[in-house]
Amino acid sequence: MFHTRLTEAATLVQAHLDAVMAPMGDLTVVQAMRYASAGGKRLRAFLVLETARLHGIAPEQAIWPAAAVEALHAYSLVHDDLPCMDDDDLRRGLPTVHIQWDSATAVLAGDALQSLAFELLARSETSPDAAIRADLVLSMARAVGAQGMVRGQALDIAAETAATPLTLDQITALQAGKTGALIEWSACAGPRLAGADPAPLGAYARALGLAFQIADDILDVTGDEQTAGKRLQKDAGAGKATFVSLLGLEGARARATELTEQACAALDPYGEQGDCLRQAARFVISRHS
Amino acid sequence: MFHTRLTEAATLVQAHLDAVMAPMGDLTVVQAMRYASAGGKRLRAFLVLETARLHGIAPEQAIWPAAAVEALHAYSLVHDDLPCMDDDDLRRGLPTVHIQWDSATAVLAGDALQSLAFELLARSETSPDAAIRADLVLSMARAVGAQGMVRGQALDIAAETAATPLTLDQITALQAGKTGALIEWSACAGPRLAGADPAPLGAYARALGLAFQIADDILDVTGDEQTAGKRLQKDAGAGKATFVSLLGLEGARARATELTEQACAALDPYGEQGDCLRQAARFVISRHS
Repeated sequence: MFHTRLTEAATLVQAHLDAVMAPMGDLTVVQAMRYASAGGKRLRAFLVLETARLHGIAPEQAIWPAAAVEALHAYSLVHDDLPCMDDDDLRRGLPTVHIQWDSATAVLAGDALQSLAFELLARSETSPDAAIRADLVLSMARAVGAQGMVRGQALDIAAETAATPLTLDQITALQAGKTGALIEWSACAGPRLAGADPAPLGAYARALGLAFQIADDILDVTGDEQTAGKRLQKDAGAGKATFVSLLGLEGARARATELTEQACAALDPYGEQGDCLRQAARFVISRHS
Repeated sequence: MFHTRLTEAATLVQAHLDAVMAPMGDLTVVQAMRYASAGGKRLRAFLVLETARLHGIAPEQAIWPAAAVEALHAYSLVHDDLPCMDDDDLRRGLPTVHIQWDSATAVLAGDALQSLAFELLARSETSPDAAIRADLVLSMARAVGAQGMVRGQALDIAAETAATPLTLDQITALQAGKTGALIEWSACAGPRLAGADPAPLGAYARALGLAFQIADDILDVTGDEQTAGKRLQKDAGAGKATFVSLLGLEGARARATELTEQACAALDPYGEQGDCLRQAARFVISRHS
């Protein structure tokens, strides 16, 4: 069930991003926006669509915030890959934006993808209720900014030149910002669209997001670049602390499994309806890319 | 009257930005956000506050979108100054963010300033009416994105490597995006906050924005770096087309004066109430920094 819905989400969100970017013309920066926002697992879009479904929101409506979060995620990857940041040349199996074009194009395409995300959320198609649109904008802005994703990225960069490796608590806080905030926003989008309490899905997503990052660290050590579509063993090579370096490979696997069970338990209020999200949590720690 | 209100706007917006960033802690990226958003003429904040006043909106409310547009403007300067973009080392009389810290910090601080702008607009303090908040978010997202400011910046960068210099029409279109879109958004914020028609102030701001840019090009040739607080004669040195290179110094001055009169005429529906904005338009072409 999960794999079918993830594939459906990927198809829907790609078509939607293509449609909203179609009228933007063909400037290099727009080409780069299309390139950067194509592909990927679309886990965040899936979380928006699936939690919307749980709350009785139609996919025609939920596709707007789903596309918004994928545009936002794409911006963060483009900027993260820049030479002055992680300096990555490969992403989703293709050259990164600054390799394909140049750094100026990558900075601008990322900037425009961030504003596109907020544009999509504020459009009336996202919700007929303006208070819900404003709530989605506000929560996404906080998930991105200096208390959210950017904070995590800044801590990550600071860690590279720190005298001592990060502790488990520090790396957990870092990841809660860097990848966790946007995953949590995605899972809370469904209840927010319905004007419902996002707390249970927030708890689910915090456990899921951390399990996702631990799985990423495991993949960085055990994975295959061809399958992953990005450079691996960069963290270990740079002597950076990761969940694997701190817990060991088996300890990291055990922690990810524990978090997955925690994520599943947070879905209790949804009963059997939450099964697809439970499968998603189990997929996250077993994935190869 | 204009100078008093511009100074008031600058004081108010600085205090407001300090207050909203106070709880963000002291990470380097947050220090850089504070540094980048300090100082400047605060023309955009003034336009928000003054057009709000014209529409009966209290400064306590209008200060939120005023701070938002200055955060947005600060992000655009930080990214524009990056080595891979305009490569500037001086801004508002101080080292640019990537000189003071590094490029990674500049990318992240700019990103977080953009999301801060949307956060401020979406907060309930900006307007008790969520539809107005969503309208402000949507119009700002469009002013920033690949059809607005970013488009102008992308055209500007493309012009640097173009085989032939830009024509007057092309440079006018470029500037309408690069500086015009955000100035127009600022002047329309007042009527938007009041749920009124932003068209007259939109016409005012389009003429003002273009006059502002022509004045910038004149300043680039005739100005003094100490007074301007930034590097000058970069465009002429790079052989880029500017309004001065296309129209000559006197022609550019005449065009700026013509646009100022056009801006003032657009304020007719506001009668004498528009005098402060008329003074603002006249100031823009006579400024020295």
